[in-house]
Amino acid sequence: MTPPLRIALLQGPGGVPADAGESVAALEAAAGRAAAAGARLLVTAELFLTGYAVGDRMSALAEAAGGPSARRIAGIAARHRIGIAYGYPERDGEAVFNAVRLVGPDGGVLADYRKTHLFGDFEKAAFTAGAEPVVQADLDGIRIGLLVCYDIEFPETVRAHALAGTQLLVVPTALMRPYEFVPQVLVPARAYENGLHLAYANRRGPEGEFDFAGLSCLAGPDGVVRARAGAGDELLVADADPALIDAARAETPYLADRRPELYRSLG
Amino acid sequence: MTPPLRIALLQGPGGVPADAGESVAALEAAAGRAAAAGARLLVTAELFLTGYAVGDRMSALAEAAGGPSARRIAGIAARHRIGIAYGYPERDGEAVFNAVRLVGPDGGVLADYRKTHLFGDFEKAAFTAGAEPVVQADLDGIRIGLLVCYDIEFPETVRAHALAGTQLLVVPTALMRPYEFVPQVLVPARAYENGLHLAYANRRGPEGEFDFAGLSCLAGPDGVVRARAGAGDELLVADADPALIDAARAETPYLADRRPELYRSLG
Repeated sequence: MTPPLRIALLQGPGGVPADAGESVAALEAAAGRAAAAGARLLVTAELFLTGYAVGDRMSALAEAAGGPSARRIAGIAARHRIGIAYGYPERDGEAVFNAVRLVGPDGGVLADYRKTHLFGDFEKAAFTAGAEPVVQADLDGIRIGLLVCYDIEFPETVRAHALAGTQLLVVPTALMRPYEFVPQVLVPARAYENGLHLAYANRRGPEGEFDFAGLSCLAGPDGVVRARAGAGDELLVADADPALIDAARAETPYLADRRPELYRSLG
Repeated sequence: MTPPLRIALLQGPGGVPADAGESVAALEAAAGRAAAAGARLLVTAELFLTGYAVGDRMSALAEAAGGPSARRIAGIAARHRIGIAYGYPERDGEAVFNAVRLVGPDGGVLADYRKTHLFGDFEKAAFTAGAEPVVQADLDGIRIGLLVCYDIEFPETVRAHALAGTQLLVVPTALMRPYEFVPQVLVPARAYENGLHLAYANRRGPEGEFDFAGLSCLAGPDGVVRARAGAGDELLVADADPALIDAARAETPYLADRRPELYRSLG
């Protein structure tokens, strides 16, 4: 029996950080608090390192997946013995991706994901879309999957994760007003219809032309939101219990009752 | 500019009707009230003609798609000049399907759909699953699609309708307690993530071993529930405005931003 995984969701920041160093320092403080609360995984918002509303500086701010901030964050994870999933703009040659890296509690790299569904004109201009829909890694016996923000508004992406065995979907996000329907309704719906845990960590407050909604949450496989943030800075702590996945899938056997031969028009 | 389509959802019955004649009489009364309220389409719950909790009598109660009740319902539609979508068990040779027929305001047959996703042991024993995922017809310039109950809990089915141009999804249902999450959360989510109207007409109250939840609703393409029933008999009237579809799809362009090449694992 795999025990529950305690997760901490770092809602924030409010506004663009002065530089990546400020973000890394905030992450270190949060890692300490999360570890003290017993969490084994800390999740940040989308583009946590640099901020979202950085305009045409995104490319200049992008770092390689194993760049200087990555090395510092690996040290934080190892020091506090906590996994960390963080959002940042990733440089790879000429391309910039809207990326998430998951490092383990020993500081080792567990997974790298590049956002596949870019939202709006700003992201489509700033980033190259990723090409790999399902990226996973195991932590404490739980299969973790990575997506970013707009990705999960497409039911196809989360279904692909469920079919591939994801038990906990970790989703850094930058969800703006007036799209509160997404964290309030779509996120619990995704968790319920796939029978998995979904951890959704958002930015909050005004930032340039954007206004981020907060409302970070952990939704369970039964659709119940087990923890929910408000509109300000918050460190949300909640447990993802794999036993709930089996219970939900026995109650509503969506994966077993699918009829893939009828879904050919989707892909 | 296609004007809004006024829809009436007949929530009920409570309990198994004495016979199909009782159901047809109730439908005639509802058609009169719906037409007087200006509705152009009346939608019943799943298996409206016979009841749901009829045990092993389902096969004996099943009628051919063009059987005696169908002829009477065509007359009701023509008399009240209102389209009618009704649920019933359909006999076709040895097979029995959980079916919906849509007749037009002139009494002519517009579409026949057979439920593709059967729920639980009872339905899997009583029915053969349908093989056609997307069945559509036009009424007053609006493209209507048909699904039944459990079908829409699979995001794949509603997505297939949206991709095929469905603007109003008509869903007779027999949604039991404790699955209230479905009408409360999944139904608005389906409408929002596909940018279409979804009319969900439920049974209500105890019936044999089942207890139906009511909560029939019309959800708009913006995710807003425009009308919602309680737990008892109700005739819900609401408008499905096609202009809202364009507005929603401009705001959240999910269909345009899909990446079907990444969804190959689904079908």
